[in-house]
Amino acid sequence: MSKYQSLKEEAFEANMQIPAQHLALYTWGNVSAFDPALGVFAIKPSGVPYPELTADSMVVVDLEGKVVEGTLRPSSDTPTHAVLYKEFAVADKANIRGIIHTHSTYAVSWAQALKPVPLFGTTHADHIQTEVPCTPYLSKEAVQNDYEKETGNLIVSHFRSLKLNPNEVNMVLVGGHGPFCWGATADKSVYNAAVLEEVSHMAMNTLAINPAAAPLPDYIIQKHYLRKHGPNAYYGQSK
Amino acid sequence: MSKYQSLKEEAFEANMQIPAQHLALYTWGNVSAFDPALGVFAIKPSGVPYPELTADSMVVVDLEGKVVEGTLRPSSDTPTHAVLYKEFAVADKANIRGIIHTHSTYAVSWAQALKPVPLFGTTHADHIQTEVPCTPYLSKEAVQNDYEKETGNLIVSHFRSLKLNPNEVNMVLVGGHGPFCWGATADKSVYNAAVLEEVSHMAMNTLAINPAAAPLPDYIIQKHYLRKHGPNAYYGQSK
Amino acid sequence: MSKYQSLKEEAFEANMQIPAQHLALYTWGNVSAFDPALGVFAIKPSGVPYPELTADSMVVVDLEGKVVEGTLRPSSDTPTHAVLYKEFAVADKANIRGIIHTHSTYAVSWAQALKPVPLFGTTHADHIQTEVPCTPYLSKEAVQNDYEKETGNLIVSHFRSLKLNPNEVNMVLVGGHGPFCWGATADKSVYNAAVLEEVSHMAMNTLAINPAAAPLPDYIIQKHYLRKHGPNAYYGQSK
Amino acid sequence: MSKYQSLKEEAFEANMQIPAQHLALYTWGNVSAFDPALGVFAIKPSGVPYPELTADSMVVVDLEGKVVEGTLRPSSDTPTHAVLYKEFAVADKANIRGIIHTHSTYAVSWAQALKPVPLFGTTHADHIQTEVPCTPYLSKEAVQNDYEKETGNLIVSHFRSLKLNPNEVNMVLVGGHGPFCWGATADKSVYNAAVLEEVSHMAMNTLAINPAAAPLPDYIIQKHYLRKHGPNAYYGQSK
Repeated sequence: MSKYQSLKEEAFEANMQIPAQHLALYTWGNVSAFDPALGVFAIKPSGVPYPELTADSMVVVDLEGKVVEGTLRPSSDTPTHAVLYKEFAVADKANIRGIIHTHSTYAVSWAQALKPVPLFGTTHADHIQTEVPCTPYLSKEAVQNDYEKETGNLIVSHFRSLKLNPNEVNMVLVGGHGPFCWGATADKSVYNAAVLEEVSHMAMNTLAINPAAAPLPDYIIQKHYLRKHGPNAYYGQSK
Repeated sequence: MSKYQSLKEEAFEANMQIPAQHLALYTWGNVSAFDPALGVFAIKPSGVPYPELTADSMVVVDLEGKVVEGTLRPSSDTPTHAVLYKEFAVADKANIRGIIHTHSTYAVSWAQALKPVPLFGTTHADHIQTEVPCTPYLSKEAVQNDYEKETGNLIVSHFRSLKLNPNEVNMVLVGGHGPFCWGATADKSVYNAAVLEEVSHMAMNTLAINPAAAPLPDYIIQKHYLRKHGPNAYYGQSK
Repeated sequence: MSKYQSLKEEAFEANMQIPAQHLALYTWGNVSAFDPALGVFAIKPSGVPYPELTADSMVVVDLEGKVVEGTLRPSSDTPTHAVLYKEFAVADKANIRGIIHTHSTYAVSWAQALKPVPLFGTTHADHIQTEVPCTPYLSKEAVQNDYEKETGNLIVSHFRSLKLNPNEVNMVLVGGHGPFCWGATADKSVYNAAVLEEVSHMAMNTLAINPAAAPLPDYIIQKHYLRKHGPNAYYGQSK
Repeated sequence: MSKYQSLKEEAFEANMQIPAQHLALYTWGNVSAFDPALGVFAIKPSGVPYPELTADSMVVVDLEGKVVEGTLRPSSDTPTHAVLYKEFAVADKANIRGIIHTHSTYAVSWAQALKPVPLFGTTHADHIQTEVPCTPYLSKEAVQNDYEKETGNLIVSHFRSLKLNPNEVNMVLVGGHGPFCWGATADKSVYNAAVLEEVSHMAMNTLAINPAAAPLPDYIIQKHYLRKHGPNAYYGQSK
């Protein structure tokens, strides 16, 4: 049995959540699961419909994007995942073992509008303390050079210029394209993508109801975030 | 067998309606069922996914929020429920034996817009005779003092300042957060949350179609409300 | 066996399409099936949830709204159905043997906006040749006199003042309330309610995309309507 | 066994995707499958509900719209399909073996607004390199002459006047009516109709969020389109 078996199973289970949570149509979207000790991640094969996926069809690649196990071609977005793991998980030591890319309807709509998703309420603040960042369009040079790798670089440089901590802000919109999210497991990255879709929908509605809607006051943001994620968190069953 | 068994079963069944009626994602939302004779309510445990809930996992707490039965930590919103039962059900003698909190999409959108839901039509008037109230944001002091309890206090003081009767107005939006609803049973509180979500959606659409839409005339509001809820009600099969 | 058995079964089957087609929540909405020879119609009992309905629970009433068979109280909207059958089916000799009332989301939104649904496209023109009429609010006197009967009268007088033919225009919005639709069978009335919901959604979107959107030219309206409903109709399998 | 058996099965399977992908209600919409060697296509019979369709009920017609096999009347839109096959597949030698017409909600909304769907993001650019074209209304003369055939002619002349290549642009909105899409198989035409519905929804949202939203820069459009469809495409598993 492959030493990557459990990693491939984690990636497979998480990918199957994309259609289950209505986060993309047909073959669109992809999730990867990362093993920092082995320095590899398992990712969805490119262009394969979800009903045909199996754990065995997952492709294992290293952080240079080189295939180390699997017979299929990995997702075309593999170099973006590799950059995010190298920069955020390895260099910045963020606790990231799963990354997801979707084409979910409302998150993509904000990305196409080139607007960060405002932080209007506690549904959003329960998960991140900032608006959901939206990068500018990738430059012509970057697109023509190495598109998918440069997409990763754009996310990283956008986070660094805004001084965002990828351990805390686990979602981003790539301008004109769509969302990438991450988490401590592949499954948690999918959860974050579902959260992003829901808060994107709520934020669009909020502006439709009140075009002058104000962001949530910072003291409520902090309270909601910290009761779930702070050192004295009291949400859920963990100690 | 626990003397709280039927209360826990009522709470469990009502909680399972949250995902069934699409009122919240994942572990979000919670319902409680109150027994005024015993002075306790049963509520969802914090952060547990709905598919893992059982009647036995419900947590029984008293009106000070102290756990009297159950091994799990109760919903983080428990102190809000406790305040509403103490003030509305006990002090005001309103017929409230169930309370629900959801993150349903359209109701949250109005809460984020800091706007009450206007009473535009009979779908709304069949249930309450006023717009759905929306509290202001909780103050910084209240948030830092005792957030969940103060959320309950904010709802109560908002009702009292507007002279709203919690027996008649069984739903509210907490500004920047989302809806709380209640009813004569836990199951009826869920029904009210589903009504609120639907009238929130309809009201947003109504303004999109006609930004100058007017509220329903009062004489139609009274007719619709009273044919269902007045002393001579003639809707349904009860005498 | 009751001589109304097949009428009750037709009404039952049609009522069960309300939740199946997502035209109302819980117990809301109702369909009736009319037998002109017997001068009676079968209608949903008031306030009964759809999963509990049976053909036997349907209530048979005459055109004065008097129950002639059944142990349950008929829908509170029964007098509205009775007026429409008396005026449109009997007096005007329109081919109407089924009537439906729903609270479907987008149709209600237009009714709340007090706006007729503009005829923007062929999806609409395949069914009716005019915008979907929307009555004004019922007057205070009418509401206080005999609300449900006056709702029927309002629809009838609105049709007559606009010179609309109920054989051709088989749907209407009651201002501030919601849709009533009818058809040659109870089942076809449900079909018309689903059409109205879809064209209401499309029309709201159309205005969001282009606030200056124009109605469909009359020569396209006539073509689409007549290829389905004219003397030389060539849509479908009938001769 | 009919020599058209596999063509009829392909058409049947593709038609059953219309309700599965929520692209139309009831009997609306139709797909055809074309065999260029035989010079015929199989298409849905007119006005038959999807649950009653079988492969045997598909109607085989030639490029003049004459029925060559089948006992039912073909879709009333058959002459539109015939024109598109004759002009695009035969005359222009585009690789088109399937055509679909739907009444999907968001695509119809853009058609009713008489607006092409702007190319705002990569979800769109992954499939076509231009906005989705929208024809003007058909002229009065054309409607009264031969409506369905002229609908085909309108699409063809609109493509030719805009110098659009039907091999690359495989979707169009007919003004005031709705979408027609095509593809290398009947199944791929359904895929394109689902893509169009999704990008239509995203584009409406994008304008709601940012009325000044700009089209995606051309260099990103080209990159996304070519990585899937260019000579050096690297999306998916094909060589």
